[in-house]
Amino acid sequence: MAPEKQNDKQAELCDFGLIGLAVMGENLALNIESRGYSVAVYNRTTSVMENFMAGRAAGKKFIGCTSPKALVASLAKPRKIMMMVKAGAPVDAVIDEVTPLLDKGDILIDGGNSYYVDTERRTTELTEKGIHYIGAGVSGGEEGALKGPSIMPGGDKSAWPAVKPIFQAIAAKVGPNNDIPCCEWVGPRGAGHYVKMVHNGIEYGDMQLICEAYFLMTEALGLTNDELYDVFADWNTGELDSYLIEITRDIFSVKEGGDYLVDKVLDRAGAKGTGKWMSQLALDLGVPSTLVTEAVYARSLSALKEERVRASKLLKGPHGDHLNGKKYEGDKQAFITQIRDALYASKIVSYAQGFVQLRAAAAEHDWPLNYGDCAMLWRGGCIIRAVFLDRIKEAFDKDPKLDNLLLAPYFASAVDKAQDGWRHVVATSATLGIPVPAFATALAYYDGYRRARLPANLLQAQRDYFGAHTYERVDKPAGEMFHTEWLDLRKSPAV
Amino acid sequence: MAPEKQNDKQAELCDFGLIGLAVMGENLALNIESRGYSVAVYNRTTSVMENFMAGRAAGKKFIGCTSPKALVASLAKPRKIMMMVKAGAPVDAVIDEVTPLLDKGDILIDGGNSYYVDTERRTTELTEKGIHYIGAGVSGGEEGALKGPSIMPGGDKSAWPAVKPIFQAIAAKVGPNNDIPCCEWVGPRGAGHYVKMVHNGIEYGDMQLICEAYFLMTEALGLTNDELYDVFADWNTGELDSYLIEITRDIFSVKEGGDYLVDKVLDRAGAKGTGKWMSQLALDLGVPSTLVTEAVYARSLSALKEERVRASKLLKGPHGDHLNGKKYEGDKQAFITQIRDALYASKIVSYAQGFVQLRAAAAEHDWPLNYGDCAMLWRGGCIIRAVFLDRIKEAFDKDPKLDNLLLAPYFASAVDKAQDGWRHVVATSATLGIPVPAFATALAYYDGYRRARLPANLLQAQRDYFGAHTYERVDKPAGEMFHTEWLDLRKSPAV
Repeated sequence: MAPEKQNDKQAELCDFGLIGLAVMGENLALNIESRGYSVAVYNRTTSVMENFMAGRAAGKKFIGCTSPKALVASLAKPRKIMMMVKAGAPVDAVIDEVTPLLDKGDILIDGGNSYYVDTERRTTELTEKGIHYIGAGVSGGEEGALKGPSIMPGGDKSAWPAVKPIFQAIAAKVGPNNDIPCCEWVGPRGAGHYVKMVHNGIEYGDMQLICEAYFLMTEALGLTNDELYDVFADWNTGELDSYLIEITRDIFSVKEGGDYLVDKVLDRAGAKGTGKWMSQLALDLGVPSTLVTEAVYARSLSALKEERVRASKLLKGPHGDHLNGKKYEGDKQAFITQIRDALYASKIVSYAQGFVQLRAAAAEHDWPLNYGDCAMLWRGGCIIRAVFLDRIKEAFDKDPKLDNLLLAPYFASAVDKAQDGWRHVVATSATLGIPVPAFATALAYYDGYRRARLPANLLQAQRDYFGAHTYERVDKPAGEMFHTEWLDLRKSPAV
Repeated sequence: MAPEKQNDKQAELCDFGLIGLAVMGENLALNIESRGYSVAVYNRTTSVMENFMAGRAAGKKFIGCTSPKALVASLAKPRKIMMMVKAGAPVDAVIDEVTPLLDKGDILIDGGNSYYVDTERRTTELTEKGIHYIGAGVSGGEEGALKGPSIMPGGDKSAWPAVKPIFQAIAAKVGPNNDIPCCEWVGPRGAGHYVKMVHNGIEYGDMQLICEAYFLMTEALGLTNDELYDVFADWNTGELDSYLIEITRDIFSVKEGGDYLVDKVLDRAGAKGTGKWMSQLALDLGVPSTLVTEAVYARSLSALKEERVRASKLLKGPHGDHLNGKKYEGDKQAFITQIRDALYASKIVSYAQGFVQLRAAAAEHDWPLNYGDCAMLWRGGCIIRAVFLDRIKEAFDKDPKLDNLLLAPYFASAVDKAQDGWRHVVATSATLGIPVPAFATALAYYDGYRRARLPANLLQAQRDYFGAHTYERVDKPAGEMFHTEWLDLRKSPAV
């Protein structure tokens, strides 16, 4: 298991260096060490390092370092140093501090949630200095970091052979023999962090969809937490089988005294920004990633807790109902199944949008991404891990140039089977006054995408009317632009 | 009417300079000249200027200039020069070219759709050089520019007294006596361009909402263009009375030979970026401006024309209906009224979101915005001009610190009256398979905003479960964070 040392002289030097011992860094370090590698660790606040060394690292192959210099001196060449620090300026600060201490050929890895544009820049800058830079998305939360995360590395591929055995050893494993690591080279420069960002954006969507299902089942059906536990336990055995459904199930079982803890949690959601980035980049690319954006906006709306409490007293629901007490009057079990259908179909749309955005970004940046591989990177270890990703892998294996997952026969058929329930759920939510922005936007996307004709002809006519923006015609080649003096040609309105 | 000259020596010098004779620049120049001001004009391509001088400007108080130097030499001091050039690098290029020619105290105005961040920077840079800089949003399209646009100036307020008489002379007029100009000082630095951007974002929403109404009336009700003309003519007499409804009415009357032109227009929408900016900035501010974003995404989706045509053959609608031939089976006239309700309620939500974003931006940038004034700037001249803006003005006059337009009694009541129809329209669209992303997201926003409790408690529990992101509690002061080891406390799942 233990890697061979390059020569005897380096025998006491560590195999790997890690900077930043917050929860993710600490757990990754322990994971790496547990695979037979010795790890040198450094943390800006020395006491954090000392506590780690005296605690969870005690008796293991760790060297605690009190300075970047000491860290660098502790490592065998080519040095492999992973930064697990806050995205943004802190990463640049560590790079500036560490780079002068490194030799050409050393490898610096950013394992945080960096904005991919920063990673593009850093890869280029460090390549010029002879340092190999890798931007690696790492997903899996605390537990994943410790036991097997999903790792999405991109950047300077010449560094990959040296890092690959370590990363693939610590990554989650999937496949029938549990031997396919959820870690493969993604692409140049910022590609790894971009894929990680899309993973996180999809995670936003998944979580929002689950919340909408939960809200419907409590508001419209009045299910108890015990009943919700059973529903999510059931869903976790089928097409929705996934980590997020599983932990949702668990959450409904956690009690504090006699009360369910979930009911004590304040309904004000936080966010760390990757969903926002994905939305902003989708807007720049001109691709409609509506699910992640509605999920981000739903979190913003949830954050206005005090204002919502005030609004709840002033704004009426359907039929003047202030109390939102109106329940669903149809068959309860059937409605639960329809909610599952809505969740599954919306989830397919969300992943379809995520892969469309990846394609658009890959085209813009000239990244040779393999979409089936991306799906498999997310198959285990990470927050969005799900059985369903096997189907995505199959779809891209069958057609690597697939424009949209919805066009793959498997998913086209899955959505078709789910659509009646999905439509019923969206319609019922509108009628009952229960907000389901993600279910609804997913359905609108599906119904828009499958339309040969949309009403944008009127929109183009409006733009040409007031701003001479010109328009294309259905009876002329695309790209040929026309302008009409609509005002002069209109019927004179009755006065 | 003609302004007094500062001294006799300057008697032959022009009152105003204009750079950039594309359609908006040309029309603005004509508008200014028509109010008694002499105007010096310059265009990078000299023939454009020469054609203008020989054509529409012939016999009027214009001086055609072949260089920035000639333009500057033609102007009375303090010089007032307005740039009407493409946003972005071209504006900086003109600034770099013109600034060295100016004297301290001269005034440079950007009348294009500049990104407000650029205007913030340019105002600061030029203030340091002693040049007064104004970033002025101008709306109204071709016709507005010529006959009376809406103008939203911001920047260096010390320049305002010199520019105010000209701008207020050319602006659209509203009010009972038609004497209130749709032009008032907005605020410092980029505030004017920000307000213009929000105007454009609201315009995106209005246009998308009208398209959804149009699509429903054709797809679900099978209305002809003649019938659509009548519907929009009728809507234009009530609460929806507005320029965009009016031109939509007109569009349905324009024929080419025996055919309606709107049916010949390709359903692929273009965009110039201000809706995208507003969305991206909403995401940065953490305010849910869902209408503009869904409108931008709807344009992106419309742009995929060829892909949609392919998808239309593969993806099924409700009940396996490929042809989307399913019509609405209820009362046709009643449904038209319900569509109007959906449009009106969604429009209120859209404007509410726009003003929320303005408030958030004003707070971030320390702009002392007057929201009632903003509403009145848009009351005439611009693309979103509408009777309904009087109600917004009244709401902010009554409560300048209003958190959300939906909380103003007038709008709370208007939405309540419209909501049954609105809900029916969103539900019916979901059932029939007609995409109405903007109607639906507006309703989800309303139903989310009026909820004291949203399902974000589950979301926070999930985030704490997998990432130790912590949560607040309903029974503890906000801001106090808690963490639970959910995994350890969960009920052991049945194996």
